[in-house]
Amino acid sequence: MRLGTCYFPEHWDPSEHQRDVDLMVQARLDIVRMGEFAWSRIERESGQFDFDWMDRTLDRMHSAGLEVCLCTPTATPPKWLVDRYPEILPVGPDRQLRDFGSRRHYRFASTVYREQSERITEIVAARWGQHPAVTTWQTDNEYGCHDTTFSYAPDDLRAFKDWCAARYATPDALNRAWGNAFWSQEITDFDQLWLPVGAVTEINPACALAWRRFGSDQVVDFNRSQVELLRTHSPGRRVAHNFMGFFTEFDHHRVAADLDIAAWDSYPLGFTDMSPLPLAQKLEYMRTGHPDIAGFHHDLYRGMGDLWVMEQQPGPVNWAPHNPAPLPGMEHFWIWEAWAHGADVVSFFRWRQAPWAQEQMHAGMLRPDGQPDAAFYAAQRAAQERDQWFPNGVPANVQAPVALVLDYESLWAQEIQPQGASWNPLWEAMRWYRAARESGLTLDVVGPGADLNGYALVLCPASAIVDPARVDQLAAASGRVLLGPRSASKTPELSIPEGLAPGAMTQLMPIKVVRVGSYRSEWSMGCELPDARVVRWREQIETSLTPQALAEDGGGLWYRNGLVDYLAAALDDDGLRRFIADRACEQGLNCEVLAPGERVRVRGAMRWHANSGLAPVEGAQGALGQGQFSITP
Amino acid sequence: MRLGTCYFPEHWDPSEHQRDVDLMVQARLDIVRMGEFAWSRIERESGQFDFDWMDRTLDRMHSAGLEVCLCTPTATPPKWLVDRYPEILPVGPDRQLRDFGSRRHYRFASTVYREQSERITEIVAARWGQHPAVTTWQTDNEYGCHDTTFSYAPDDLRAFKDWCAARYATPDALNRAWGNAFWSQEITDFDQLWLPVGAVTEINPACALAWRRFGSDQVVDFNRSQVELLRTHSPGRRVAHNFMGFFTEFDHHRVAADLDIAAWDSYPLGFTDMSPLPLAQKLEYMRTGHPDIAGFHHDLYRGMGDLWVMEQQPGPVNWAPHNPAPLPGMEHFWIWEAWAHGADVVSFFRWRQAPWAQEQMHAGMLRPDGQPDAAFYAAQRAAQERDQWFPNGVPANVQAPVALVLDYESLWAQEIQPQGASWNPLWEAMRWYRAARESGLTLDVVGPGADLNGYALVLCPASAIVDPARVDQLAAASGRVLLGPRSASKTPELSIPEGLAPGAMTQLMPIKVVRVGSYRSEWSMGCELPDARVVRWREQIETSLTPQALAEDGGGLWYRNGLVDYLAAALDDDGLRRFIADRACEQGLNCEVLAPGERVRVRGAMRWHANSGLAPVEGAQGALGQGQFSITP
Amino acid sequence: MRLGTCYFPEHWDPSEHQRDVDLMVQARLDIVRMGEFAWSRIERESGQFDFDWMDRTLDRMHSAGLEVCLCTPTATPPKWLVDRYPEILPVGPDRQLRDFGSRRHYRFASTVYREQSERITEIVAARWGQHPAVTTWQTDNEYGCHDTTFSYAPDDLRAFKDWCAARYATPDALNRAWGNAFWSQEITDFDQLWLPVGAVTEINPACALAWRRFGSDQVVDFNRSQVELLRTHSPGRRVAHNFMGFFTEFDHHRVAADLDIAAWDSYPLGFTDMSPLPLAQKLEYMRTGHPDIAGFHHDLYRGMGDLWVMEQQPGPVNWAPHNPAPLPGMEHFWIWEAWAHGADVVSFFRWRQAPWAQEQMHAGMLRPDGQPDAAFYAAQRAAQERDQWFPNGVPANVQAPVALVLDYESLWAQEIQPQGASWNPLWEAMRWYRAARESGLTLDVVGPGADLNGYALVLCPASAIVDPARVDQLAAASGRVLLGPRSASKTPELSIPEGLAPGAMTQLMPIKVVRVGSYRSEWSMGCELPDARVVRWREQIETSLTPQALAEDGGGLWYRNGLVDYLAAALDDDGLRRFIADRACEQGLNCEVLAPGERVRVRGAMRWHANSGLAPVEGAQGALGQGQFSITP
Repeated sequence: MRLGTCYFPEHWDPSEHQRDVDLMVQARLDIVRMGEFAWSRIERESGQFDFDWMDRTLDRMHSAGLEVCLCTPTATPPKWLVDRYPEILPVGPDRQLRDFGSRRHYRFASTVYREQSERITEIVAARWGQHPAVTTWQTDNEYGCHDTTFSYAPDDLRAFKDWCAARYATPDALNRAWGNAFWSQEITDFDQLWLPVGAVTEINPACALAWRRFGSDQVVDFNRSQVELLRTHSPGRRVAHNFMGFFTEFDHHRVAADLDIAAWDSYPLGFTDMSPLPLAQKLEYMRTGHPDIAGFHHDLYRGMGDLWVMEQQPGPVNWAPHNPAPLPGMEHFWIWEAWAHGADVVSFFRWRQAPWAQEQMHAGMLRPDGQPDAAFYAAQRAAQERDQWFPNGVPANVQAPVALVLDYESLWAQEIQPQGASWNPLWEAMRWYRAARESGLTLDVVGPGADLNGYALVLCPASAIVDPARVDQLAAASGRVLLGPRSASKTPELSIPEGLAPGAMTQLMPIKVVRVGSYRSEWSMGCELPDARVVRWREQIETSLTPQALAEDGGGLWYRNGLVDYLAAALDDDGLRRFIADRACEQGLNCEVLAPGERVRVRGAMRWHANSGLAPVEGAQGALGQGQFSITP
Repeated sequence: MRLGTCYFPEHWDPSEHQRDVDLMVQARLDIVRMGEFAWSRIERESGQFDFDWMDRTLDRMHSAGLEVCLCTPTATPPKWLVDRYPEILPVGPDRQLRDFGSRRHYRFASTVYREQSERITEIVAARWGQHPAVTTWQTDNEYGCHDTTFSYAPDDLRAFKDWCAARYATPDALNRAWGNAFWSQEITDFDQLWLPVGAVTEINPACALAWRRFGSDQVVDFNRSQVELLRTHSPGRRVAHNFMGFFTEFDHHRVAADLDIAAWDSYPLGFTDMSPLPLAQKLEYMRTGHPDIAGFHHDLYRGMGDLWVMEQQPGPVNWAPHNPAPLPGMEHFWIWEAWAHGADVVSFFRWRQAPWAQEQMHAGMLRPDGQPDAAFYAAQRAAQERDQWFPNGVPANVQAPVALVLDYESLWAQEIQPQGASWNPLWEAMRWYRAARESGLTLDVVGPGADLNGYALVLCPASAIVDPARVDQLAAASGRVLLGPRSASKTPELSIPEGLAPGAMTQLMPIKVVRVGSYRSEWSMGCELPDARVVRWREQIETSLTPQALAEDGGGLWYRNGLVDYLAAALDDDGLRRFIADRACEQGLNCEVLAPGERVRVRGAMRWHANSGLAPVEGAQGALGQGQFSITP
Repeated sequence: MRLGTCYFPEHWDPSEHQRDVDLMVQARLDIVRMGEFAWSRIERESGQFDFDWMDRTLDRMHSAGLEVCLCTPTATPPKWLVDRYPEILPVGPDRQLRDFGSRRHYRFASTVYREQSERITEIVAARWGQHPAVTTWQTDNEYGCHDTTFSYAPDDLRAFKDWCAARYATPDALNRAWGNAFWSQEITDFDQLWLPVGAVTEINPACALAWRRFGSDQVVDFNRSQVELLRTHSPGRRVAHNFMGFFTEFDHHRVAADLDIAAWDSYPLGFTDMSPLPLAQKLEYMRTGHPDIAGFHHDLYRGMGDLWVMEQQPGPVNWAPHNPAPLPGMEHFWIWEAWAHGADVVSFFRWRQAPWAQEQMHAGMLRPDGQPDAAFYAAQRAAQERDQWFPNGVPANVQAPVALVLDYESLWAQEIQPQGASWNPLWEAMRWYRAARESGLTLDVVGPGADLNGYALVLCPASAIVDPARVDQLAAASGRVLLGPRSASKTPELSIPEGLAPGAMTQLMPIKVVRVGSYRSEWSMGCELPDARVVRWREQIETSLTPQALAEDGGGLWYRNGLVDYLAAALDDDGLRRFIADRACEQGLNCEVLAPGERVRVRGAMRWHANSGLAPVEGAQGALGQGQFSITP
């Protein structure tokens, strides 16, 4: 339960640096992230290095007792490098060059850029890797941000061909895996493969999935190559990457497997504005953030490593369609929310608002005129409270009673082939998460390989692709397992399982999904489940099991086989909350009925109770207004 | 009144083929379509042919008494062919290549592809054209699907220049026809012509119309070249093409003139989801289809040749924004609806749902696991009913009392220059069709050259471009002719007629349209016509005729000259229904007032009475719920 | 207070020319614009000129006593010229060529096109510059129309590099000005600069502003080069350009500084349809135009030179999404509205509706069949009324009591970085203008360098970038100055001022804007100002001033320092009207409370009183229905 910030010494006159460090100490910060966009200052032209400014900054930090998280600067190759190696620039799905002028203008599959990435990583790691201030590294910055996971350059096609050759061994094996007999898509040589872009109409979903896997693998490899160099040149330090919110373009579990710290960048207001929430909820939470957006991601990334919030929204930002000022106190609220969800570090982005360039309207802990802003005081206050409330050390992260299983391949499968414009698999997972949180439950979000022992309830909202190991884990789960519709509905090559869905899960749930329908979000249908209506997705089931509840169409809606439950449709928000709460009660969990904006989370001995909604809620120490919380140690 | 399916033997192991054939017989099918996407299986590499699998399949079919409709496989040139002749790939309106990866990746104007099309057509026709199972051919598949009628490659410009030189003879004639004095668009050589794409703002509408005619001519020529080869190598067989719904990009009357069978692909749910219907109607009919969508197209294509439904939706599909499961029984409903509208064959697409590739979520008569699905049983049942209800042979297709005139050039003129975002000429024709159907009338949809003798009522909703022959036919019509606004409002070169609209029709309707206005769809204006409001389009008329009815603005709305009526505005749905019903009554036709989802159609001695709406309607044999119908032989 | 039209003799057979001239005289016209798209008729092929047709037309005009405004034909380079010099074609932000086929297909920065522009300008000026009929010139036509101010060709980048080198002198100065330390954007050579297009995400706003200035400078230079040649070869004539509505892409004040006449093209119905107005208002004013759209632009361009309406909507047009017929009488209404706002000439576009090409559905003073249409009679009537009501000469244009200050750089700054999707700076200025007009006030819209002496009230709705001279002028203003939010919020290089906003204006208003928030348009907040709610934008202020009114959030909303007022938020329409009316009353101005569609304007001794709304309003000579007005001389 520590605090930090993101600092850009290269933006400020050296004469201001010591004042900055002094103020950081005053703000009670522990750790400072630096350097992720500083390539043009470290290497001003090819081979011309300037290390002094960072040397001096690290020394200042160390003298002041601050730890440093240093970054590889590969998210922003400078113009001289782009001019020398234009082939590093990515090509967009419109087949146009994505040019210099902002950031992330590189292709992961570029061998030239991989060499440059390794060169500069080695240089910064060798220079500062053993500096006593440096305790942590961040690789690059926000992999994939601005849709940069994928690129469609000719050289990307070459890499994809190689990847396919390695995965499928023979053209015929690929033909069979993808079903290329359909529409005469067969190849006789891997060199005949094509980029999945610009086709006349929909491309083969198996090809699209291969492309996603290929793209994700490029990120994994790119990251790993930096991690390995950092571990070599900077032994004993921990390595992080800062992931993002609502982002699924690569397999975060696999990237995180090479890291120590699974950090993410938390911008509750921007995420709320850009979310699929209905307008009324966007308005209610526009100045606090929706109560589950930060929580879901905290729990998601805590399932991959030590949880850090590498960038914490410190006030209004600049990049969302609308950028409200947070309600007074939210900067403080967000620190405690992250800590309650198990964060080790909460680091505000950025230290001081820069008066120019793209992010000039993005707040910092200091205003552009150098005066402390709200986040500065929030950090001071939170540090003081922490010391006061937990004099004997911070509460431990312990296993939650409820697990929600999420894996990226299943999300990809459904993003590639949603089979209905109203279907968003990540948002469906968010709805299950919210349903559980609205009943006061504390959750872990776990990856596909997680041990499910000890959970009273395991939620599988959208596990479309599962491997046998997962099935075994679910079969071995000690608690009740809730499977959502579309579970195991696809093979690993994105086809329909031979015996129909739920394919590999049929042993857990002996049913056959014989027909599915997707529906407009304005449609709904009644059913026997309390408080519930069927929405957007409905399956027709063949089985010898007797359904636990029927829908209005007379078909089964809820099936049970031992400890496993299956929902043959999507439920609306109210129905989903009630369904999960009822299952939790069956398992002996203590469910509460919270107000829509009210949330509780338990971290060891600490209970966090908060309200993001307009209507006040009753707390242990009195009413909680919008944006207020209480901590019960 | 026969049944069929679309079968892809190349998708299944040969060991399953005989079981498929046996089940087809069990399903009471008569004819099986095959081969339209099988190029890569017929010719695996350039010149390496594999005919055996199809030989054996044809033999099996023949032995089982099944007819076959064989297809030319030109809709999916295989990758080896694209790699060898990349110039066949089309270029989109964004001037990017439309690449391999799906289907229809060819340019109609490519001389190379024309040669390849003729080569493979000759090969398949020579190989199988005289096989006893083969009674029918289909050319290519869904010409123009995925916006593939037009391509903007340099070679397309060359072809367009030639086409213009042939049509206009001299640059000055083209200049005059297009009005190129406007904006200095004049040319002095056909080589100065340009592609109608990428201009700074709107291109010359006459140029756009020439481009549409050119594009349509390419399709006509491409199709004709296949038809001629098929007739040569497969004498005595009939030739079809499968047209689509709501598709106007080429002149279907001209393509169909070379065919025997005007087939189309009927997907009532997908078309309803993607139609311009208001949300409430989309929701009401999401699981049945809007009651006029299939009917309109049945009647449209029956006006061009023998009517087949080459592809009939068999359950949920995969390609619409939302893909509901049809209400139970709809597969059976759609067969009888098509038969009632005069179809000879109703052929379900597809036989067995493929578990992989683009259409894996598209239902079939068999499920992916090979078990019969709803359409299988629907076919069995319909065949049995047919035999029982019509033991002495199926009812004849006879001329309907009402004709609706539709031509593609008039649609193009209004699509190119709608003069109002709320104007959709095809949908306007649909609205007139619906208005008549809601009054229980049975219609023929006829092309521009049709003989109008014997019709009590002739509807011309949007005949913007008419030639003198058409005027003569209308003048000679024995019944009442109803002209919609914008009738004859353009010359064949898309300009305003010299004496103003209705130009060539002025002899039928002696008025002058001196001003027009287009209006937002939220606007409307009252008028003297019963139940009616003026919407979206309003004309101001100069004439010595006394109007039959005025609009609220004091201007004439309805004019009559002998047997010809003219509406100087668009009417809302209710008003249009009442207006057409009143005119039909004047002509002595027997109008009913049907419920919104209720329809009737008479085919010879057979009366089909159906309900697609939520509210039950009273039928001859009791109430008809949603998705139910009755047949009165 | 004169009348005119736009005539295209090249569209009509010479045998009709004299009839046209005779009818123009009959319509009481004074001046006729010609030639702006006639290049292909003046120079049919390179160097082959045909002057006779225009010679004869000028002679006819002169004989009939008509003045002529002749145009340079550079808006439509003919095809032979484009084929010879393809490098003149612009490249769009999608990096695709913007090709021949319509108009404005040239790049301002093309040196080749500059030469061609000067060549043809010299030719027409030399040929007709001293013809007695020619009293006025128009340069080109609607600079920037169809987004043609900017082009992204390689040659544009070259010109931009030169422009930046001239502005910033050294790469380091540019780096500092733009804040290029951010995201490693630093350059070491001007040749490293990039086009602001195709970047992975948002480009540097300072770079975007430089690009806007560069683009605007190209227009200024292009126009100036024509003006200079015209003044040389056609001495004593006045020079105009026809600007557009709601168009901000170049600095109109700077272009107009080289002209005598600031003309614009007024299409009230099209502008209303395409405006950000809510649907209900679009419906109410769809056939009259919103009551402030024409007035605002009349007042805006009158602030730049002699006001002409070079193109006046004469009936329905063709280019808006919806193109209603104006209410009867609107053509007459618009003439008097323009005259009341100080117009010298109101010239209908076009004389006769052309039956072909892009604008065939655009009405004229004559119909396509050559018969007079509504605008013809409107001109006759207005000329007669003018002569009758003002027998002693037209009323003088005198300074209004209220000024609204508008400058293009401030608009650019906010367009580049709106910081909220609900923020539209030009529309914000329109809202302030409307608020004042709804209180019956008469306004001048003045540029950034205007003398503010004599105004009782000066409105500064969105002056984001101000220079010291402007601050001095505001400080010296004799009346009350109202500053909107975001005033002086940016430096000239689009960064946050060192001491925070309102930067350069802090001496006028000693406050500090320490935090801002942007909000969805559905959000609002109460406040102490009468009738008002805070909408879309809210600032948090630090100051020793006592606020005059608070918002519901407890923060200051309205600050006063001497004669200067500051609003720390956007107000809704009602609140803004009341606030401005109350300040006007404080200044002793006589405010009325007008109906929503009612407007008044005073031009010298003439008072124009009009109603564009559905509900009648009480006028001096009785009720005014929708589209009616009265003149009180």
